[in-house]
Amino acid sequence: MIRLRQSVSQPENVQPFDLTDRGLLLADGAFDTSRVVSGRIILKRAHMARLVRDAAALGISITSPELATLAAEAIPAGGSGALRLTVTRGPGARGLAGETSGAPTLMARFSSIESTYPMAPVSLGISSIRRNPTSPTARHKTLSYTDNIVALREAIVAGHNEALLLSPEGQVACASSANVFARFGDRLVTPPVSDGAMPGIIRNWLLEVAAGAGFQVAEESLSLERFAQADGIFLTNSLRIFQSVSSFSGREFETELPPALIQLGQALLEGSFDD
Amino acid sequence: MIRLRQSVSQPENVQPFDLTDRGLLLADGAFDTSRVVSGRIILKRAHMARLVRDAAALGISITSPELATLAAEAIPAGGSGALRLTVTRGPGARGLAGETSGAPTLMARFSSIESTYPMAPVSLGISSIRRNPTSPTARHKTLSYTDNIVALREAIVAGHNEALLLSPEGQVACASSANVFARFGDRLVTPPVSDGAMPGIIRNWLLEVAAGAGFQVAEESLSLERFAQADGIFLTNSLRIFQSVSSFSGREFETELPPALIQLGQALLEGSFDD
Repeated sequence: MIRLRQSVSQPENVQPFDLTDRGLLLADGAFDTSRVVSGRIILKRAHMARLVRDAAALGISITSPELATLAAEAIPAGGSGALRLTVTRGPGARGLAGETSGAPTLMARFSSIESTYPMAPVSLGISSIRRNPTSPTARHKTLSYTDNIVALREAIVAGHNEALLLSPEGQVACASSANVFARFGDRLVTPPVSDGAMPGIIRNWLLEVAAGAGFQVAEESLSLERFAQADGIFLTNSLRIFQSVSSFSGREFETELPPALIQLGQALLEGSFDD
Repeated sequence: MIRLRQSVSQPENVQPFDLTDRGLLLADGAFDTSRVVSGRIILKRAHMARLVRDAAALGISITSPELATLAAEAIPAGGSGALRLTVTRGPGARGLAGETSGAPTLMARFSSIESTYPMAPVSLGISSIRRNPTSPTARHKTLSYTDNIVALREAIVAGHNEALLLSPEGQVACASSANVFARFGDRLVTPPVSDGAMPGIIRNWLLEVAAGAGFQVAEESLSLERFAQADGIFLTNSLRIFQSVSSFSGREFETELPPALIQLGQALLEGSFDD
């Protein structure tokens, strides 16, 4: 017997739903957010492949074509915005081990978003919540996002726009919903996954293509001291692509992104890196 | 635009649901599981109060009477089983900070369960996933349960029934869905919350009442070495109450619980500690 009390955001968001879904009850699933430009998912193959891998890490079996089909149904013709794909283990019996009898649940949500690029710079505050590199939630984009939400909410209360999360040892890891890069001249440095950085799609793509645009890139542990001495800091994620950090740790930073980097992001949005 | 593909467990579990609920998308909420005996929620006041506190820690405002009303609607007259109460921030806009316009979502699910007490002993395996005491998910029962699920699934694959999670420093913390106690003669020792132990309702209750039953109780850090040298190990949670560990770390343990402890649990199930 299940009783539900829920407000409704928009009537069109309400659909029949099995309330025993383990995604709702236990964050037993994974998700992916991608940017859609004129009906085209940027880095579609990488996004689908990662979600398939992240679900597999939880023992949930789905395929890229299944995801692509549902995504295509959710994206309006020629639409631009954000696509959120969610995969859960599906409805299940009570308890952590509760096995499911049916297929995994898939959900595709399309939202129109502001299409500014690059987005306005942000102020970054340090969170007291550390990343946990021993947790599957650090290297897979699972539904367990409480840490990220609380870190961001606390950063906003403290007057910032984003939260910086550190490794257990106090090294820089990543932001609440973005990776971080420190720029030293033409050298771009981002923390390794072993420090608790989420292996983001834009982060990984930039590590691959930046050399072609005249940058040196490296995955290296970043102490807070070294991070604060960078010539510039920027965030990467699939919606913002690149976003400068204007202030961090009491220091103001140069917010102008290198022209070659802006061009790289522009080419990405124009589909030059899609396959 | 949202597209959903979901299997159905039982038709009665399907209800109209706003799919933008942040509990489903981002584990943005908290929950509580309690045991119901003949229609009565064991330690009802403590369960409701903790869920109100855990939700408040996430900035979600609910009250005990709201929870109690929904719970009463979900529990069949005179029913015995498990009650799961879930609270989420409610449907919201896209993004981590996405604010909600309506009330939090409340859900009450009642399931019949086996009423054996004490339950059969379990074998405990050590998880490679460490608890994260800096995370709100360590001290609040949030919906972010991926770590617990993965730890349990891996323990089962390795031939165990439960997973033991350690603190970052390698001290004993708790099991995937239970607290742990080591017994040395009449002395019961459980790890402190600062080592990443979830402050469970039965754990906290036992810390309060055990002295009255002739035990000494203490919250103390437990190294794996000391833990493995206990006269007995048992788990506590709201459904199992007390459950012996039969084997851990290659050692077999005495699975007979002290009679005074069994009586304490029996009195709990009979309602002697309810208010």
